[in-house]
Amino acid sequence: MGKYIDLNCDMGEGFGAYSFGVDEEIIKYISSANIACGGHAGDPHVMNKTVELAKAYNVCIGAHPGFPDLAGFGRRLIPYTNKEIYQMMVFQIGSIQAFCTVHQVNLNHVKPHGALYNMAANKRGAADAIARAIHDVDPQLILYGLAGSELVKAGHQIGLQVASEVFADRTYQADGKLTPRNRDGALIDDTETAAEQVRRMIDKGEVFSVTGEIIPIEADTVCVHGDGSNAVNFVKKLRQILKEQNIQIKGVSN
Amino acid sequence: MGKYIDLNCDMGEGFGAYSFGVDEEIIKYISSANIACGGHAGDPHVMNKTVELAKAYNVCIGAHPGFPDLAGFGRRLIPYTNKEIYQMMVFQIGSIQAFCTVHQVNLNHVKPHGALYNMAANKRGAADAIARAIHDVDPQLILYGLAGSELVKAGHQIGLQVASEVFADRTYQADGKLTPRNRDGALIDDTETAAEQVRRMIDKGEVFSVTGEIIPIEADTVCVHGDGSNAVNFVKKLRQILKEQNIQIKGVSN
Amino acid sequence: MGKYIDLNCDMGEGFGAYSFGVDEEIIKYISSANIACGGHAGDPHVMNKTVELAKAYNVCIGAHPGFPDLAGFGRRLIPYTNKEIYQMMVFQIGSIQAFCTVHQVNLNHVKPHGALYNMAANKRGAADAIARAIHDVDPQLILYGLAGSELVKAGHQIGLQVASEVFADRTYQADGKLTPRNRDGALIDDTETAAEQVRRMIDKGEVFSVTGEIIPIEADTVCVHGDGSNAVNFVKKLRQILKEQNIQIKGVSN
Amino acid sequence: MGKYIDLNCDMGEGFGAYSFGVDEEIIKYISSANIACGGHAGDPHVMNKTVELAKAYNVCIGAHPGFPDLAGFGRRLIPYTNKEIYQMMVFQIGSIQAFCTVHQVNLNHVKPHGALYNMAANKRGAADAIARAIHDVDPQLILYGLAGSELVKAGHQIGLQVASEVFADRTYQADGKLTPRNRDGALIDDTETAAEQVRRMIDKGEVFSVTGEIIPIEADTVCVHGDGSNAVNFVKKLRQILKEQNIQIKGVSN
Repeated sequence: MGKYIDLNCDMGEGFGAYSFGVDEEIIKYISSANIACGGHAGDPHVMNKTVELAKAYNVCIGAHPGFPDLAGFGRRLIPYTNKEIYQMMVFQIGSIQAFCTVHQVNLNHVKPHGALYNMAANKRGAADAIARAIHDVDPQLILYGLAGSELVKAGHQIGLQVASEVFADRTYQADGKLTPRNRDGALIDDTETAAEQVRRMIDKGEVFSVTGEIIPIEADTVCVHGDGSNAVNFVKKLRQILKEQNIQIKGVSN
Repeated sequence: MGKYIDLNCDMGEGFGAYSFGVDEEIIKYISSANIACGGHAGDPHVMNKTVELAKAYNVCIGAHPGFPDLAGFGRRLIPYTNKEIYQMMVFQIGSIQAFCTVHQVNLNHVKPHGALYNMAANKRGAADAIARAIHDVDPQLILYGLAGSELVKAGHQIGLQVASEVFADRTYQADGKLTPRNRDGALIDDTETAAEQVRRMIDKGEVFSVTGEIIPIEADTVCVHGDGSNAVNFVKKLRQILKEQNIQIKGVSN
Repeated sequence: MGKYIDLNCDMGEGFGAYSFGVDEEIIKYISSANIACGGHAGDPHVMNKTVELAKAYNVCIGAHPGFPDLAGFGRRLIPYTNKEIYQMMVFQIGSIQAFCTVHQVNLNHVKPHGALYNMAANKRGAADAIARAIHDVDPQLILYGLAGSELVKAGHQIGLQVASEVFADRTYQADGKLTPRNRDGALIDDTETAAEQVRRMIDKGEVFSVTGEIIPIEADTVCVHGDGSNAVNFVKKLRQILKEQNIQIKGVSN
Repeated sequence: MGKYIDLNCDMGEGFGAYSFGVDEEIIKYISSANIACGGHAGDPHVMNKTVELAKAYNVCIGAHPGFPDLAGFGRRLIPYTNKEIYQMMVFQIGSIQAFCTVHQVNLNHVKPHGALYNMAANKRGAADAIARAIHDVDPQLILYGLAGSELVKAGHQIGLQVASEVFADRTYQADGKLTPRNRDGALIDDTETAAEQVRRMIDKGEVFSVTGEIIPIEADTVCVHGDGSNAVNFVKKLRQILKEQNIQIKGVSN
């Protein structure tokens, strides 16, 4: 049995008259769709349509909960208590779950969005609240979290199946954390370099930091982007390079 | 085995810093709680708290979906298509369902709120969309709808268990419909008169219209109010009169 | 002194992370910008940016208030009372006015959006509420309304300067009203035909109805669109044809 | 000429079907009303009604802008940039200004709400953004800010008239800052003690800290509360004590 990896992408991030990203295109190349739940983006119509789309392409469906801050697209840290985070998670997972039910597909995983994702990566209390909400709603759900983060640890502790997420187009620091976006060298623009980073993660379980150290990293799923002018080309190229390395693309499931 | 009736009340209609109604008091006297789902009112914190409250008092829990129009408290008819109504219902039922799951209680029923309730009473397309959404999410859910309405018919047709809702403090017209609130004589202020109307509905399956005709009516559940200065006194009095008539208060279940 | 016409376009209809239309392009070809006020679209950042843009291009700035229904983009009729319409108008005009103040430009006009525009065209009560709100906030503001509509009449009655709006790409019925969008023949796809319709309106004060009648029409300002793939090409072509007819493009001012 | 002080109270903090505070009662005893602008609370109907109320009681009207976070009632710090704070301020001041215009009263002052108030007290960048927005919209507006805060300094620097706000029912630390609410001894429950604190501030320009130091403090306006069961009694008592000291209650004006 060969090597494999999951490619996940955030989807269903439109709202009302507004569209966001190229869901209909990118869906062809990924194995997991993280669908916004009406918090940072998405509404019942968009959620319904996106579940249908993911079902049609046989892509694993995940909840993509975020701070209910449409104006900030979930990218601003709202100072929620851990209890409020738990309740927000329950609400949002429940709503996407119902769309899965009516379309007779399974909700496969949960990946927090934006500021919630970052908060959960670093704050154990928030991470625990998220992991517990997922577990309480359905212990079969898989938690997607930043490789090496507090969220991954919280998921393991409560007994969830966890997928460690890595980034193709972001660089890593010597401590294993992502280089913050506002720093020089945070982004990898060259597709081949990005694909090579992913290949090494899968193949060797390691990544080069921006300062040249070799860092061990667990890679179950790669985050690819569904917006931006180069999104589709990037993922096509990434798939091709992975294929050449006999790395199969498939969703994370239990 | 004696006669019985359900007393249902809308609950969980606060939002953020705002409270609404006297949930903690009224819960003691009812058998079904219809809990707002974050559409016309409610938020994850309020929903969580209200599910806990209903569980503590062993009251049947229902979803109380409404137009997502907090500014209008769901009392304004937003011109949704039937498809949009269906999707809104799925979203809102799903979110309250998840709070039931984490508190290990069943979601028992669904009762639309405000303008959605009225629309569903009269428009078969909307009624069908609502009944279908409930059925698709969970066919075991019980539909609460206005006695004799299109919603009740839609529920029966799709195979849902249906509870016919009657009002203690509203008068009925000769055609069996409620007298619109803005008409004279729409409301019954006197508690004893209201209780007697309910007793007759349960006992004889009929109600006097405002114009004096006897109208047949099915009464499975009585709507009582959780806000207004007289709310608690009214329901206490109603319970007492029903008790004197050997009519038991209990939730509708399958 | 020659003939002239105003070309107005709805702008600033993005929200948060969402963009809408090609404001930066279309601004080059129009003489009036109707800027969303945070009701149906727009937020403080977008409003600020769009006022700056209009100022930079020396385009007349208008308020473009709409139902505060971001999910429906102001295209759904919310059943507001006339009093509520008045208050909504005051609120939204006030907010865009403040951005004009800080950028030291004048607010020139007000044009209601979407469902509010249509409601005001046909319902005199709503039209009066709108006209009165504009007049009470600033009697120097110019009201843009559908040519021949109740809104135009309401504006005249209260003493506002009024600009009659016509459409290049919509057909008119024998009664002078726009052919509803959902009817066959409602839209004029061919740019030359559309431009010719505008030219005739300006030149002769008349328009052919879909059924061939000649209808008198007052044309002070033409609505052009800032979204859709053909938006920029259409307005460029329209300008060119008008120029060939010695019709000057300029804003409506008092 | 005798001594005087302003009593200000936050008002108009209802929303839709939700009410908040006892505006109609408290208005009788205060000299300045800070009216929510649809950000943390308030809507066009509430704003209109509250401006009418303040006008009827001849109370100075202020804008009370806050983070547009109804769910959090403006009490959560949303990480806005200074530019975003500026734009939010312009938007909210503009909307309340328009209600003043249609009711032919002056907007007198601006006092930020909740988390925005606290942020502006401590962060000079935010304070400058707020002061500049007020100044750009109308340099005649008076800025209400926490006595000794960065906001007061920012207001002075840009040339605004500034009113230093003190609290009757909060204690002060040795550094002149308010004791955080979550600390023991933060609140003064006894009305007489609170009134005495205010009297001393006015009379001597000083306050005792919780640790017993005498701290100089400037007191132009006292914040009183319009919600809570004791609100009206407190302000009545405070007025009476101030009256006995020959301290007059009157608004801050230029």
